[in-house]
Amino acid sequence: MQVWNDYLSQNKQRFLDELLDLLRIPSISADSQYKADVARCADAVKENLLKAGCDKAEICPTDGHPIVYAEKMVDPTAPTVLVYGHYDVQPADPLDLWHSGPFEPVIKDGKIYARGACDDKGQMFMHVKALDVMNATGTLACNVKFMIEGEEEVGSSNLGKFLAANKEKLSADIVLVSDTSMISMEHPSIETGLRGLAYMEVEVTGPNRDLHSGVYGGAVHNPINALCKMIASCHDENNHITIPGFYDKVQTLSEGERKALNDAPFDIEEYKKDLDVNDVWGEKGYTTLERTGIRPTLDVNGIWGGYTGEGAKTVLPSKAYAKISMRLVPHQNSDEIAAMFQKHFEAIAPGSVKVKVTAHHGGEPVVTPTDSIAYKAASEAIRTAFGKDPIPTRGGGSIPIIALFENILGLKTVLMGFGLDNDNIHSPNEKYDLANYYKGIETIPYFHKYFAEMCKI
Amino acid sequence: MQVWNDYLSQNKQRFLDELLDLLRIPSISADSQYKADVARCADAVKENLLKAGCDKAEICPTDGHPIVYAEKMVDPTAPTVLVYGHYDVQPADPLDLWHSGPFEPVIKDGKIYARGACDDKGQMFMHVKALDVMNATGTLACNVKFMIEGEEEVGSSNLGKFLAANKEKLSADIVLVSDTSMISMEHPSIETGLRGLAYMEVEVTGPNRDLHSGVYGGAVHNPINALCKMIASCHDENNHITIPGFYDKVQTLSEGERKALNDAPFDIEEYKKDLDVNDVWGEKGYTTLERTGIRPTLDVNGIWGGYTGEGAKTVLPSKAYAKISMRLVPHQNSDEIAAMFQKHFEAIAPGSVKVKVTAHHGGEPVVTPTDSIAYKAASEAIRTAFGKDPIPTRGGGSIPIIALFENILGLKTVLMGFGLDNDNIHSPNEKYDLANYYKGIETIPYFHKYFAEMCKI
Repeated sequence: MQVWNDYLSQNKQRFLDELLDLLRIPSISADSQYKADVARCADAVKENLLKAGCDKAEICPTDGHPIVYAEKMVDPTAPTVLVYGHYDVQPADPLDLWHSGPFEPVIKDGKIYARGACDDKGQMFMHVKALDVMNATGTLACNVKFMIEGEEEVGSSNLGKFLAANKEKLSADIVLVSDTSMISMEHPSIETGLRGLAYMEVEVTGPNRDLHSGVYGGAVHNPINALCKMIASCHDENNHITIPGFYDKVQTLSEGERKALNDAPFDIEEYKKDLDVNDVWGEKGYTTLERTGIRPTLDVNGIWGGYTGEGAKTVLPSKAYAKISMRLVPHQNSDEIAAMFQKHFEAIAPGSVKVKVTAHHGGEPVVTPTDSIAYKAASEAIRTAFGKDPIPTRGGGSIPIIALFENILGLKTVLMGFGLDNDNIHSPNEKYDLANYYKGIETIPYFHKYFAEMCKI
Repeated sequence: MQVWNDYLSQNKQRFLDELLDLLRIPSISADSQYKADVARCADAVKENLLKAGCDKAEICPTDGHPIVYAEKMVDPTAPTVLVYGHYDVQPADPLDLWHSGPFEPVIKDGKIYARGACDDKGQMFMHVKALDVMNATGTLACNVKFMIEGEEEVGSSNLGKFLAANKEKLSADIVLVSDTSMISMEHPSIETGLRGLAYMEVEVTGPNRDLHSGVYGGAVHNPINALCKMIASCHDENNHITIPGFYDKVQTLSEGERKALNDAPFDIEEYKKDLDVNDVWGEKGYTTLERTGIRPTLDVNGIWGGYTGEGAKTVLPSKAYAKISMRLVPHQNSDEIAAMFQKHFEAIAPGSVKVKVTAHHGGEPVVTPTDSIAYKAASEAIRTAFGKDPIPTRGGGSIPIIALFENILGLKTVLMGFGLDNDNIHSPNEKYDLANYYKGIETIPYFHKYFAEMCKI
């Protein structure tokens, strides 16, 4: 619509500056030393929501970081869109790999570089600015509610309680989330599934104290060697995961569904070049898109033990540790997989070491329907803004709370993400393309328009 | 001899206090921030040697930490004993596991607790005090030279050059070293062999940057998973090391030699209890004493990669690292084994990751003769002081410079150690029993006496 495009053009710089201000706040939820910054960021989000046209906005305290709630109610008979996003970010380390400060956003080659640029401040903020556009031009077709949390990167552990306690306030017709990727600007896509997560920590204890590796080496089980052997055994020669029962509930896709998935534009050579790897890797019998979209995984996210300083220390350590997570697909269950992992890891531990397994937060896999009004509205919005139909894809990441929306609020979700896989989310030099940011602000009002129209029919 | 015992009794407290003063100096050679402390410790050793009766003592600079040289020449026709020891110590970390400060020595239950209490300040200092005893009582039978270095814990990399440049100054009939263990006070023993060492560091690189484990997990090789698999594959199901050629030169002992080795008093239940392990571990077909004495090993001394902080981070890291060392036995060669390891590790790396292998310092395995005059003098000295013959054993540790003494100075070594395996050397709460300290001071003069007598025959 011309009126939206005009307003967006006139306010382009302001829409960027306001995002940059938000990116300057180091709202790292995982690290308690940033607690005040996280709170400051919540306030900033609230102020931005009021400024964009919300009738009301509030900071809702939780046992952890606060949730920002806001709403703009235009018509009780119009459908209501509940926008979910998060204002917290991942830790920025390793800091030395950043080309510029993670909380000193810079624009380079048409990209905003900063922690949270894409995940999720940049994507969440598109909805705030889209409201601004619709509000300023008097074109709001739906009521809008915002629920922007501050604990997504640490497992959203207080969100379930908040949902259960605020069912009425959060009543809506659809949840709209921009916290995922599309294939490219040339190949817009909508993720129709997300993987779940089971995240474990293991501690392997050998002798009761660090030993001299000369005096004891060869006769006392080294817990690092033991841990490596246990981790190695979790994949067989075909890179299948060996935990008994692990694949029992994995959804099997039809040949047609697999074909559709593999029809998505994907250049394996470009992919390898971007990552600077000579070969991809993964489960035998599946393509790269299948490996990240419809198959579960087991990755070591961190490992440590013994002497890790400069030079050499001849120690046979007492303990070794690893953080190991599994991405899950429908219909695997996070708690069940966590229990399976624990049982398996304890079972494969040799008698010469002791093993302790604990679970961090998990999340359930989700599949969003493609035959719903909301999906059709999103699809149509993208077709209008991008000039082509979006491709349905399966995302490899996890947004554990999507399952909560369905279970507690009874609401389906549309994952209308505008990120790119190479945005370096969770990594140094996270970025978000300006083009994607503005295209998102352009697309979202169409979703509201089409969703309102389709609901009426 | 009564005169020695009397002098020792009268000076018992002073002999202890002077050692405690030395233990208070944090002479950590591996950490450059302690450089001044290492230098201060060298000075203290020099002063102690002069005080104990040396005619001359000097600080000999090297490219690293200095070597303390001192001598007491009594008779040009008498044999000369070259005492080797080291005044540097291992790093003290992990600090939180120490019950008292590593450089604030305390006496508890008849044991001195401090970093270096046994390895090697306590053991080296016995020779200083034994000189004091012999000098004060006018009973020196041998000339004595001291070469006390400050880089043993970091590979003695400047000692070879020092030996080569000072052959005349260091001329002697035997090298006497107390830097090893005996079985127990009830079962005195002399180590007749030491293992060598090859110490490697490996870096495994997967993608060129840290990735989101959801977006990429399952399709891009995780370098930690890859490293674990590579490390795991280095031992087969019998815990044999799988590096091609690794065992080719390993000395095979006769059944008789193996029986003698296993005749040493050893209580496997006591050993397991002391370490709090349910099972020992090691190469199939060998006993614990053989596994540490005559068989080579491969131990991971340190491993790190990915996220190792609190909580969870869903990262698929770019890099993973490990420090891996191998203890070697006669007639394995450190450089050859290092090259074999490198070749093997590069060969087993899957095409989906890149591997970099570098070598830290190594050392050669040694066997000391048991039919020499020096060994017989040591054996007789122990029989006199302890009331029973020492048992010849094989030590698992490495003192790489023993091979240098033979190759550069043409000198054999006697390893007359008074430590115990449970002294926690290289570990928190390192200790040295007062009884062992004093028994060492009592025994050493007998070595000088018998060695001089036997050389005359």
